[in-house]
Amino acid sequence: MNTLTVVKIGGNVIDDSAALHRFLTAFSSLSGAKILVHGGGKIATQIADKLGLQTTMVEGRRITDKPMLDVVTMVYGGLVNKQIVAQLQTLDINAIGLTGADGGTVLAIKRPVKDIDYGLVGDIDEVNSGQIQFFLHQDLTPVFAPITYTEAGELLNTNADTMASAIAVDMVKHNEVTLVYCFEKKGVLADPTDDNSVIGELTPTVYAEHKAAGTVNKGMIPKLDNAFKALGNGVAKVIICHADELALAAQQGAGTTLRLEK
Amino acid sequence: MNTLTVVKIGGNVIDDSAALHRFLTAFSSLSGAKILVHGGGKIATQIADKLGLQTTMVEGRRITDKPMLDVVTMVYGGLVNKQIVAQLQTLDINAIGLTGADGGTVLAIKRPVKDIDYGLVGDIDEVNSGQIQFFLHQDLTPVFAPITYTEAGELLNTNADTMASAIAVDMVKHNEVTLVYCFEKKGVLADPTDDNSVIGELTPTVYAEHKAAGTVNKGMIPKLDNAFKALGNGVAKVIICHADELALAAQQGAGTTLRLEK
Repeated sequence: MNTLTVVKIGGNVIDDSAALHRFLTAFSSLSGAKILVHGGGKIATQIADKLGLQTTMVEGRRITDKPMLDVVTMVYGGLVNKQIVAQLQTLDINAIGLTGADGGTVLAIKRPVKDIDYGLVGDIDEVNSGQIQFFLHQDLTPVFAPITYTEAGELLNTNADTMASAIAVDMVKHNEVTLVYCFEKKGVLADPTDDNSVIGELTPTVYAEHKAAGTVNKGMIPKLDNAFKALGNGVAKVIICHADELALAAQQGAGTTLRLEK
Repeated sequence: MNTLTVVKIGGNVIDDSAALHRFLTAFSSLSGAKILVHGGGKIATQIADKLGLQTTMVEGRRITDKPMLDVVTMVYGGLVNKQIVAQLQTLDINAIGLTGADGGTVLAIKRPVKDIDYGLVGDIDEVNSGQIQFFLHQDLTPVFAPITYTEAGELLNTNADTMASAIAVDMVKHNEVTLVYCFEKKGVLADPTDDNSVIGELTPTVYAEHKAAGTVNKGMIPKLDNAFKALGNGVAKVIICHADELALAAQQGAGTTLRLEK
């Protein structure tokens, strides 16, 4: 079976052009087929500010009304996505920038309102892995902005972590998939105050212990829940690492590797 | 040989959501393979204004410094492109939004400075028609934003008319190509003050006469020069028509058809 690496890169790397360039260089050096899913960074908030729109975040998620969706579509789907694609082209990666609407790759439904109305935010309904696989067959490297669409043709703001894991899970039909979350820490930390306390391997049992002890950082919980769900759905390996250690982590020489108990 | 229709849609249709929807419905009904190239409309200027950037146009072309390029990349490559793609998906067209950087489809060089420094504006160097043809083979419909890239990974603002004609010309390798320019007039007018004075057929000789007489509108001249150049380079037919008459014009029942003298 072909190997495929799905990499999610977070906002703070995108906000730092030198860090982004280092990251893209490492990404371009990964062997085998690859897919990049990027977040948005602070640029969307900055541009929303300048346009006189107020940004409201609830538990790290952006409340998205129509004007904010337009900003997100512009910034994630346009500015950030195309800058990454153009840089990858110079690194000999034939990148193709996509939202979920492009090629009908990632269909979503508007998140139902429960306690909080997140607005125009998507929950992923279906990944068209056949279409994505077809891009990979042609040596194209998909670069996804975290935007999906509905059957009614509405664009939706979508969490990039969730989008990466949904794509990774569906691509299991065609490949042996590794999912890598790159962010600003060296991995999952046993002690949130010590950047070098990286947990090398994390199983559901160890994760539950850290959650109970409160040592796993609050923002990490949705990321890890997503990651274990991906493993449960056939993804071979999930790695959480610093953006600067992607190349090393891909060889299991850095970061935290998640696995299910045997 | 397969037939291919390359359609350029201008900014004022994009600015009018009802007109855009009518146009996309007609576009989706065209038989055979198709490609859409869209302009930007006034949204880029409006957003630039709100961001405190001044827009300078010289002969209908936007002077593009780096902040303006970012706006153009956001608005054309993000907002406008993805809204069109999502709408086409609801019309059963598997659209894929592209800039020239995506899939390395349209490479450009920064326009050399002569009398005017247009800034980060691209002159098209090479169209990768093999890549575009490969999308068509998979029943994908490319939707191009008027942005290209350089070998150094720089994005460039590019005239949409020129982009449409360059793509049409290169696609001649694989298809019998019709190029259609949709805009707000019913065609090329013999009398600029009479919207119904559409010239049904325009040859280089007739065009030269109208130019000499000054009846052909100033803004039409680069469009027509581009169009005749495309015919000279193997495009089978060029049609200039109102956006609302695309379906009719494709059957040669409306608009102006350009042909070379026999």
